[in-house]
Amino acid sequence: MAKRDHKKNTGGKTARRPQGGNPSQAHSRPPHKRPQEARHGAPLRSAGLTPKARDGFFLFGRHAVEAALKNPARECVRLIGTAKAMQASGLPGIRPQLPVEIIEDDTLLRSAVPADSPHQGVLMEVRPLPGLDLHDLMPLVGNKNIILMLDQVTDPHNVGACLRSAAALGARALITQDRNSPTESGVLARAAAGGLEVMPWIRASNLAQALDTLKEMGYWHVGLDGHTDKEIGKLSMGDNIVIVMGSEGKGLRPLVRKHCDAVAKIPMAGKVESLNVSNAAAIALYEFSK
Amino acid sequence: MAKRDHKKNTGGKTARRPQGGNPSQAHSRPPHKRPQEARHGAPLRSAGLTPKARDGFFLFGRHAVEAALKNPARECVRLIGTAKAMQASGLPGIRPQLPVEIIEDDTLLRSAVPADSPHQGVLMEVRPLPGLDLHDLMPLVGNKNIILMLDQVTDPHNVGACLRSAAALGARALITQDRNSPTESGVLARAAAGGLEVMPWIRASNLAQALDTLKEMGYWHVGLDGHTDKEIGKLSMGDNIVIVMGSEGKGLRPLVRKHCDAVAKIPMAGKVESLNVSNAAAIALYEFSK
Repeated sequence: MAKRDHKKNTGGKTARRPQGGNPSQAHSRPPHKRPQEARHGAPLRSAGLTPKARDGFFLFGRHAVEAALKNPARECVRLIGTAKAMQASGLPGIRPQLPVEIIEDDTLLRSAVPADSPHQGVLMEVRPLPGLDLHDLMPLVGNKNIILMLDQVTDPHNVGACLRSAAALGARALITQDRNSPTESGVLARAAAGGLEVMPWIRASNLAQALDTLKEMGYWHVGLDGHTDKEIGKLSMGDNIVIVMGSEGKGLRPLVRKHCDAVAKIPMAGKVESLNVSNAAAIALYEFSK
Repeated sequence: MAKRDHKKNTGGKTARRPQGGNPSQAHSRPPHKRPQEARHGAPLRSAGLTPKARDGFFLFGRHAVEAALKNPARECVRLIGTAKAMQASGLPGIRPQLPVEIIEDDTLLRSAVPADSPHQGVLMEVRPLPGLDLHDLMPLVGNKNIILMLDQVTDPHNVGACLRSAAALGARALITQDRNSPTESGVLARAAAGGLEVMPWIRASNLAQALDTLKEMGYWHVGLDGHTDKEIGKLSMGDNIVIVMGSEGKGLRPLVRKHCDAVAKIPMAGKVESLNVSNAAAIALYEFSK
């Protein structure tokens, strides 16, 4: 059911593989080529960067790249950037064995970064984090154990923002469904502001089954929904809680809702019907972590 | 000090001017022209849409356009869209007097919308909302009166998300500084999900002076900052509160901080240093609205 193992990551000290990225990639890397240039000097957009590794994707911006380099569980393929940005950032020093590709100008970087996103002259190709098992989330006695589960939240900005809030507010993990929810990406990592590298994230194939397993492990499940009289601040659910949230438009799916021990709402007195899903998640994480 | 008047808006019934947008615009509208097309049939990007009105800007997407059309205080200049989207949306029916421009294909719309933003085939040129005075925020007896003040928050997505949360959680108003903070825009309106049209938003020239004025009106000021032992949930501040937040990087400026009656933090136990500003605002609005 679960597909990633974040254990070595959250432990923070026992890297499973040597730092410096995928060694085969390091050795098979072709010599660096300059981007093709059009006749009038403007580099061609078609000469864009594409991942070399299977499942590879690009992180961009100094903060996201630095967080990934410092995560021993993160498999880094290659660091790419302008000479100026690379020197100023000090990033290559974090994993000295990692292949570094210096490029002449940042038009090539643009091809691998969403429009309007700041890349600060640096990109890094990485591979997704290894899988984690639900049983790694066994409640820790004497602690608050809060898990955030997102059902059918599709926007990578929202999922990234939820990872950031979950990490800041001390949650144990984020759980999403493996279908109909975003995978790791540069956009998601940027919204997560480092949270992607430190927050265990399980992609379960069946959320209802995952809730059954978590119930056996001692968790209580609270679904968030506006159509109820119960308010989140008035529930007494103990220390081990899964907060279950649906998409902004459709809310919780019936089967997932049926697996919740309680359904509660964030009290709203205002003129706009609903909160953004990451803001609602932040409020619920805050309330249940208190 | 204050520059916009949202009174007629929050009242919701007494429109200050007749619906249907700016009448002079309605009469002076030039006949519709098709976008220029390149030889191979692809419309030229250079034939982009630009606002006709002084201060005009474009809202995009059905939700933002509908919210604006329903706001009697919003001056609408012209509605633009593909025939298909316009017919499906029913938007022209909301203000029947408003000039409507039908365009052949949506490439022209793209020129007025940020890359990757969904416009759903409809745009509307509008003008900013009229100014509001701080004295319109006199505390209402028997109510919670919560105001959110953002100091130096520059990202329009964040300001928009704060407007949405403030509107959903029943705040009285948002206050930003008129310099160094975003103005009304399509991007901001989209993030606000209708909140821009219903939430009073004051742009003050001097936040410290604004806090002085609000103090005389009976408000207490809580600054949010991680560098303190006090937690927001443990303060007793009464019913009239201004929540003051700084930018994510720099926090509160010293003069603004000095004008706060208390400085408190959101308790964080996690591995990421800070919350996104709109998520922190949502938590604080929730806590102080309870």
